[in-house]
Amino acid sequence: MKLPTTAFADRMQDLRTSDIREILKVTQSPEVISFAGGLPASELLPAVEMAELARDLLLTDGPKALQYAPTEGMGVLRQLIADRLRDRFGLNHEADEVLVVSGSQQALDLTGKIFVDEGDVVLCESPTYLGAINALRAYRPRFVEVPTDDDGMVPAELERRLESNERAKLIYVVPDFQNPSGRRWSVERRRALVEIATRFGVPVIEDAPYAELCFEGDALPPVASFDTGGLVVFLGTFSKILSPGLRLGWVAAGREILQRYVLVKQGVDLHTSSLTQLLAARFILERDLDGHVARLRGVYRARRDAMLAALDAHMPPGVSYTRPAGGLFLWVELQSDLDARELLDRCLVENVAFVPGGAFFTDGGHENTLRLNFSAMPEDRIAEGVRRLARVLCDVLRSDDRQARAACVA
Amino acid sequence: MKLPTTAFADRMQDLRTSDIREILKVTQSPEVISFAGGLPASELLPAVEMAELARDLLLTDGPKALQYAPTEGMGVLRQLIADRLRDRFGLNHEADEVLVVSGSQQALDLTGKIFVDEGDVVLCESPTYLGAINALRAYRPRFVEVPTDDDGMVPAELERRLESNERAKLIYVVPDFQNPSGRRWSVERRRALVEIATRFGVPVIEDAPYAELCFEGDALPPVASFDTGGLVVFLGTFSKILSPGLRLGWVAAGREILQRYVLVKQGVDLHTSSLTQLLAARFILERDLDGHVARLRGVYRARRDAMLAALDAHMPPGVSYTRPAGGLFLWVELQSDLDARELLDRCLVENVAFVPGGAFFTDGGHENTLRLNFSAMPEDRIAEGVRRLARVLCDVLRSDDRQARAACVA
Repeated sequence: MKLPTTAFADRMQDLRTSDIREILKVTQSPEVISFAGGLPASELLPAVEMAELARDLLLTDGPKALQYAPTEGMGVLRQLIADRLRDRFGLNHEADEVLVVSGSQQALDLTGKIFVDEGDVVLCESPTYLGAINALRAYRPRFVEVPTDDDGMVPAELERRLESNERAKLIYVVPDFQNPSGRRWSVERRRALVEIATRFGVPVIEDAPYAELCFEGDALPPVASFDTGGLVVFLGTFSKILSPGLRLGWVAAGREILQRYVLVKQGVDLHTSSLTQLLAARFILERDLDGHVARLRGVYRARRDAMLAALDAHMPPGVSYTRPAGGLFLWVELQSDLDARELLDRCLVENVAFVPGGAFFTDGGHENTLRLNFSAMPEDRIAEGVRRLARVLCDVLRSDDRQARAACVA
Repeated sequence: MKLPTTAFADRMQDLRTSDIREILKVTQSPEVISFAGGLPASELLPAVEMAELARDLLLTDGPKALQYAPTEGMGVLRQLIADRLRDRFGLNHEADEVLVVSGSQQALDLTGKIFVDEGDVVLCESPTYLGAINALRAYRPRFVEVPTDDDGMVPAELERRLESNERAKLIYVVPDFQNPSGRRWSVERRRALVEIATRFGVPVIEDAPYAELCFEGDALPPVASFDTGGLVVFLGTFSKILSPGLRLGWVAAGREILQRYVLVKQGVDLHTSSLTQLLAARFILERDLDGHVARLRGVYRARRDAMLAALDAHMPPGVSYTRPAGGLFLWVELQSDLDARELLDRCLVENVAFVPGGAFFTDGGHENTLRLNFSAMPEDRIAEGVRRLARVLCDVLRSDDRQARAACVA
């Protein structure tokens, strides 16, 4: 029996499968040099340490690790997260203002459920994180892109859109080494965001998966650190500093908002895995998470450098890219008449993959952009992959037979 | 800053915290005899076996266990689930018709997202599973209770409600040892349900967490086994046969429906923990899950027997209860003018807890009912708890000073 479209909810018409996850499927084979994923380096995942910790945990605290747990999360982990937020970011949340979630993607879904009615306006950066678009779209908001430069959302542009959108419900931002652009907001812009959001009474969702992965100097104070009115919801994750396979993230917010996250999570999955929560807690208590993160920073910095060096060496004139000071991604803008989706098809023939940038814009367009991941691949593979990408690009430009494109050096 | 109600989505007005989870919070202390939870016996969770398996897994396949994974689930586990569905239940699903979810509670949330627009009708048993009400309520359906007897939903009553509710979108059932009633549907009723649902073209959600926990004879064929049109979605879980702390369940359905579950899950949490998926797969491959389930059946059967013996010995006349042939729960109906919530308050003073039954009815009422769990407590504690419960009940009845209540024997 084929079910008619009317058998399903209206919202299903808006949902599309993520470009990224579909591209990832075709880039599994080892000969592909994939800049498409957002994967941490597999060889740095602390498997041996986790093996001993998991065994000890299950031998000494097994029934707790295998049994049901509170929706809010395991007390020990909530406290460790609160401690880390204070020590790393200067955020002063008690343990009971922290909710453990099943990866920070879940926090985005919960956010939609809590705040968004059909037709409500969600303000976001331009570009913005594709996973957030996908999670929130199920609640049928109208997305409004706020013009964004290298320092973050432009305050005057944000103000103008808040004034003209009565149904503005949320401002969603990724201020540190944003996915996809790699950009980091300046401190002034962070402060301005809180000031404006407070004036309009609109909650801010600060998504900070990459905040600890800064390659030069210290982390900047989060947007949430300027919040005095309990309007900023801070989302974090262990996926980028420890392991994505554990599916562990958190929401930190004032009690008024946090209780709603707890309530909604209860209906959504009861609670996050007791086993993976207690395992992460043991890692923090018995191993050296800070040392581990420092090691990741060093490796990712070298990979970013390799990617930038290769781009500098091989990209033809007219191509620009960001030079991120942290995170996993950089962002490339091609000649305005090029289409990154077509380029991807050609690159896949050469066993190179990336994510076309158009999917990161809620208003469409920007098909001449693309996202490159530099964390998942050693330097020599990065250099080779960028070389191939540049060669394909030059072929396209030459075949277009246009002026100034003879300058291709790939 | 106190946010106005209008800062939140309209659906938040409908959501309430689960009675069960709130009661569980006050029943944590060891002196409480709690019949309130739905917990598997902690002492039977296979912690030592899991300790060795987790260590081996992380040493031999660590990067895979700690890295991102496909939304659909790990291939090895999907295949093992498909095999088990065929061997135990005669269901013929390929591995790619199985989606691994983060506990079957997640499957209920995904179900709401896929099928339910505001005002759509969800048909359910009377009573029905509270967690399903909570998950689906976020999508603002109208619940319609279908009269249900000891053999399941009454077919003529279901037909009548399908005829009179044009917006019927789903039929939700728990045919095996239902939570909360402990009832099991007859084979005839299962077949009739599929026949009626097919005639009306309305999908059936078959929630089967307890199907393997039958104490006498074999499992009955699932509703899904009678489905020829791909209208039945089968939900299962490892929570009751292996460990709830892993947060592992599954959806098995035809490809047309399953692809929508995958699409929606992508936005909701990307994927379920790679570590817990691979750990469950190792348990199935390298240990004896069937033997483990057989052991659970034996222990739970003895506990059910202890509970029934205590109820038979101590309950005053006018109290009735189900005699379930499996699962974790039995269902008590008190004198019609009694309120189980008031009884609970008195019982908590005596350190006995249960869940008042009213929360399991979408239309309200039935405040004279309650749910008792028998899986989480040894026999002597069960006997003592029922004795105390009966004594409190007799006190209430005597204080009411009514006729025929002198017969209390507690």
